[in-house]
Amino acid sequence: MDYQHILETVWRDIQPYARLGQQADYIPALARVNPDQSGICLKTLDGRTCSVGDADVRFSIQSISKVFSLALALHFEGENLWTRMGREPSGTAFNSLVQLEYEHGIPRNPLINAGALVTADILLDHLPGDPEQFYIDFLRTLCGSPDIDYNTEVAASEQSCGYMNAAIANLLKHYGNIHGDLDRVMRLYFMMCSVEMSCRELAQAFIPLANHHQPFCFAGIDLTTSQIKRMNAIMQTCGFYDEAGEFSYLVGLPGKSGVGGGIAAICPMRYTIAVWSPRLNAKGNSILGMKALELFTTLTAESIF
Amino acid sequence: MDYQHILETVWRDIQPYARLGQQADYIPALARVNPDQSGICLKTLDGRTCSVGDADVRFSIQSISKVFSLALALHFEGENLWTRMGREPSGTAFNSLVQLEYEHGIPRNPLINAGALVTADILLDHLPGDPEQFYIDFLRTLCGSPDIDYNTEVAASEQSCGYMNAAIANLLKHYGNIHGDLDRVMRLYFMMCSVEMSCRELAQAFIPLANHHQPFCFAGIDLTTSQIKRMNAIMQTCGFYDEAGEFSYLVGLPGKSGVGGGIAAICPMRYTIAVWSPRLNAKGNSILGMKALELFTTLTAESIF
Amino acid sequence: MDYQHILETVWRDIQPYARLGQQADYIPALARVNPDQSGICLKTLDGRTCSVGDADVRFSIQSISKVFSLALALHFEGENLWTRMGREPSGTAFNSLVQLEYEHGIPRNPLINAGALVTADILLDHLPGDPEQFYIDFLRTLCGSPDIDYNTEVAASEQSCGYMNAAIANLLKHYGNIHGDLDRVMRLYFMMCSVEMSCRELAQAFIPLANHHQPFCFAGIDLTTSQIKRMNAIMQTCGFYDEAGEFSYLVGLPGKSGVGGGIAAICPMRYTIAVWSPRLNAKGNSILGMKALELFTTLTAESIF
Amino acid sequence: MDYQHILETVWRDIQPYARLGQQADYIPALARVNPDQSGICLKTLDGRTCSVGDADVRFSIQSISKVFSLALALHFEGENLWTRMGREPSGTAFNSLVQLEYEHGIPRNPLINAGALVTADILLDHLPGDPEQFYIDFLRTLCGSPDIDYNTEVAASEQSCGYMNAAIANLLKHYGNIHGDLDRVMRLYFMMCSVEMSCRELAQAFIPLANHHQPFCFAGIDLTTSQIKRMNAIMQTCGFYDEAGEFSYLVGLPGKSGVGGGIAAICPMRYTIAVWSPRLNAKGNSILGMKALELFTTLTAESIF
Repeated sequence: MDYQHILETVWRDIQPYARLGQQADYIPALARVNPDQSGICLKTLDGRTCSVGDADVRFSIQSISKVFSLALALHFEGENLWTRMGREPSGTAFNSLVQLEYEHGIPRNPLINAGALVTADILLDHLPGDPEQFYIDFLRTLCGSPDIDYNTEVAASEQSCGYMNAAIANLLKHYGNIHGDLDRVMRLYFMMCSVEMSCRELAQAFIPLANHHQPFCFAGIDLTTSQIKRMNAIMQTCGFYDEAGEFSYLVGLPGKSGVGGGIAAICPMRYTIAVWSPRLNAKGNSILGMKALELFTTLTAESIF
Repeated sequence: MDYQHILETVWRDIQPYARLGQQADYIPALARVNPDQSGICLKTLDGRTCSVGDADVRFSIQSISKVFSLALALHFEGENLWTRMGREPSGTAFNSLVQLEYEHGIPRNPLINAGALVTADILLDHLPGDPEQFYIDFLRTLCGSPDIDYNTEVAASEQSCGYMNAAIANLLKHYGNIHGDLDRVMRLYFMMCSVEMSCRELAQAFIPLANHHQPFCFAGIDLTTSQIKRMNAIMQTCGFYDEAGEFSYLVGLPGKSGVGGGIAAICPMRYTIAVWSPRLNAKGNSILGMKALELFTTLTAESIF
Repeated sequence: MDYQHILETVWRDIQPYARLGQQADYIPALARVNPDQSGICLKTLDGRTCSVGDADVRFSIQSISKVFSLALALHFEGENLWTRMGREPSGTAFNSLVQLEYEHGIPRNPLINAGALVTADILLDHLPGDPEQFYIDFLRTLCGSPDIDYNTEVAASEQSCGYMNAAIANLLKHYGNIHGDLDRVMRLYFMMCSVEMSCRELAQAFIPLANHHQPFCFAGIDLTTSQIKRMNAIMQTCGFYDEAGEFSYLVGLPGKSGVGGGIAAICPMRYTIAVWSPRLNAKGNSILGMKALELFTTLTAESIF
Repeated sequence: MDYQHILETVWRDIQPYARLGQQADYIPALARVNPDQSGICLKTLDGRTCSVGDADVRFSIQSISKVFSLALALHFEGENLWTRMGREPSGTAFNSLVQLEYEHGIPRNPLINAGALVTADILLDHLPGDPEQFYIDFLRTLCGSPDIDYNTEVAASEQSCGYMNAAIANLLKHYGNIHGDLDRVMRLYFMMCSVEMSCRELAQAFIPLANHHQPFCFAGIDLTTSQIKRMNAIMQTCGFYDEAGEFSYLVGLPGKSGVGGGIAAICPMRYTIAVWSPRLNAKGNSILGMKALELFTTLTAESIF
């Protein structure tokens, strides 16, 4: 399959959508990003790399980080993790409080904000040394880029105006599902969201999720084949908030989006693909990113279904 | 892969779970079914059939019928279908009214009761001749069993005491999302739910969903490869009500369950599998069926992820 | 207090609001009513009657009938009534299904549709002879007008297109909170809603609720002082759907509204007042009626608070 | 009316209920209160005072303070107040977040926690000098007790473990309905909740709400007759969270409860009454207090209805 050629076709065909949507602007550092950048990078398990556009420009991975923290939590807690959260699609927006109150502080899944806050609380119990440093080192090992880092301005902005996340965290604490100090948990959470990576780096970081025949072992964190497949299952049903069904229907790959405009997805035993474009639809997912992936799996006729 | 041997291993290992759960008893005809029957049938795309247990006993397919009516509706309406319903997981029980009221009569997806009632309304507009007869003929063609039929006693019981479904149908009518006569729509809906098939017949009927390289064309109904893959995507995210994430996590195959105790699932380009055991968990899904499929995909290490 | 003079002042001052709002048009018989009619009638316990406008034109009392059926149900069931429904404000629209599903078929109070449907079911168990006839006879006795009747066209229209009420009734039946035949219950319910009375007749019919020192005894139905006061309490907290707080705040009298544009209210031991104007606000309450009563209690400085 | 004799009868008749229920124990200072204390004090507008039991023991007034802060907010904002909150019963528990999210940060009414937090934010804009001191001085003037104060330990405990209230406050801030600093708003809110008063002092403090013929003017805060009556209306529909209908039905007086076990209520132009007993029912209202007031209005046959 000539993926590079297909990527270029996709690239050309999505241009009419390039000005639609609005980038995230709830914090200044995200509002300042040039919204007209975009890129795609695909990596195959047999070692090829294809890309178009701004595939080497780093951006705020935001909620895509929830996949990496889920990997860490599964390593440390195994199936015990599910006493603290569910693995069902939420059917609601990423930051909804309603479900959390009805279900007494048990988040629906690890890929919504509430679930990722509980995950951060769990990681504080397990990560050796400086948790923030461990997380960055894990990501650096995972994608082989020693200079990946998080954006301190973004992290600080998120913390200072993240009232909805603070509401969620306090509700979790009220129900006893955050054990540690609230400020500490939120600091780790916001730091994880503010990591910056390029499409090329994200595509590399997701390789172990696509390649479940290889042992997953990075920076001392290892996962079984079954755990990797289950992470993919969770991405499939929960990776796009209340558009999980839409992404599954149109694209048909396990993936995860972030409000920075990135989407990373995998085709098991074949490839990983990361797209980026800051303009979002009403559900908080990248418009160009969704469109590019829909076209890509249509043209390749490759999907998990 | 020696599927027959694996099925037998699964069969042996699930026996400790055989008495757990409760069969559906909301109508006499379902309450009378011997709950200690169970069976599995697997069919590969290359023509092999493996089975264990009561694989040839027919049972009430109930909500599995929603997959067949979705196929018909996609044929007739194409993407227009999505003006009448969504394709997102509901995150709630199969018969919940709450979401339907909040979302003004647009069902979340075609595999919950509300969505299937709207689908029945749509089919009444399109099916030539006697709709019930057309539906049965379609199923007979699909699985090559000319004597498949629906159980008139079950259909009549469902209609006479299906107050929750009548509430849903009236709410849909209130919001203008059922166009035809309510009683007529419900009659077709309940007839479709009361079709009886065996595991062997269900496994055969799902073959075209697994084999998306072949043209789907039965009884004049045809679907494209893309439509088949999208049906699988909808089963993956919406096929098990508020246990869709659980089934995706534990089993990793697109599938659909029914309160008669059946589950049918597919592994794209490989096989279809149907299991049956009437005892249900609290979410209305077959306990033995869920367990059998979880063990099966663990032992084969084959899933879509 | 010169009530007649005050009524005339109110009448003049509300004219600027006379064209605001929209009359109910969900059935033809209500849509045909001339929306520019309006009237007020006040009756004091010491026997005076004051009125302005179309105080003798009969209109569809709709939900005001729920007060009369509550009186009957309290007579027959006493405090047992509260095993079938609550007496809390709903905080939601008059016909919401959400709460009813969350609370497993127990309506919040007798003055929303769900509560009145359960009340109708209860009355069918108790009313001797022809229930519809008994109800009409009770109203005729209550207001001393032997020719009060219900509008058969309105009742038939409500029944034939009352899908939301049918949804509610089916949900109640599903939860076992309607015991009788659904169609029978709905026929009585819609008949009660379609009774036609004038402001003068409504003001007379509410006199026993204002005059709790007198024994309540009409057509063999008797209530204690305590029961009358408690009916007033329920009107106060539940009589205006999700505008109960608003009416309490602005008017300060126990009362009940209907989508026909009528409102009846009482000032304990002083007077009853009925207003009518078909144009409704977004909550389904008469705009002129609300405004008139607000001005009236402001000018008289008489309210229960 | 011999109120003292009636109080003594009530006192005797409620003793069988004296050990039912559980005192609030979410903070140590409340958990340490002797739960077997209880008292009643009634004050008439003509100057009589009657009491039984521990009518002079001070207790934490908790949510009863919301009435006093509403009085202040109405003085400063008048009808503008209702741009920041509603005046409808919530139909849900006092600390529910669900409604607040659905209604985008506009609390249903000023007597639930969310509404009182917005009120505290408003008061910080208006109260001259030290807001906490002003509030205490207002209460001291209102009931003529110069040594009323708040319990600093209770205030500190509430603040340090009030995660649910912090969740609500953050959600309000997210929706832009808290303008000031969150910690500052919560400090004032918790201080107001932790004021300690006796039944005698509460009964005195509520006199101006019962006596709406007199001008309300205390510590520079004045309210019109209409404003006082409207405060009573809000207490009537919203003063007991999701038991507002129950209190209205059984007691029939405007009032307000607190989780410290106090209830204060008024009979317009007649009397005020305050009861206290720490043991609460499942809704957070004093069991003895509810029972005592029900018996009292039954025996006197005096209520607003």
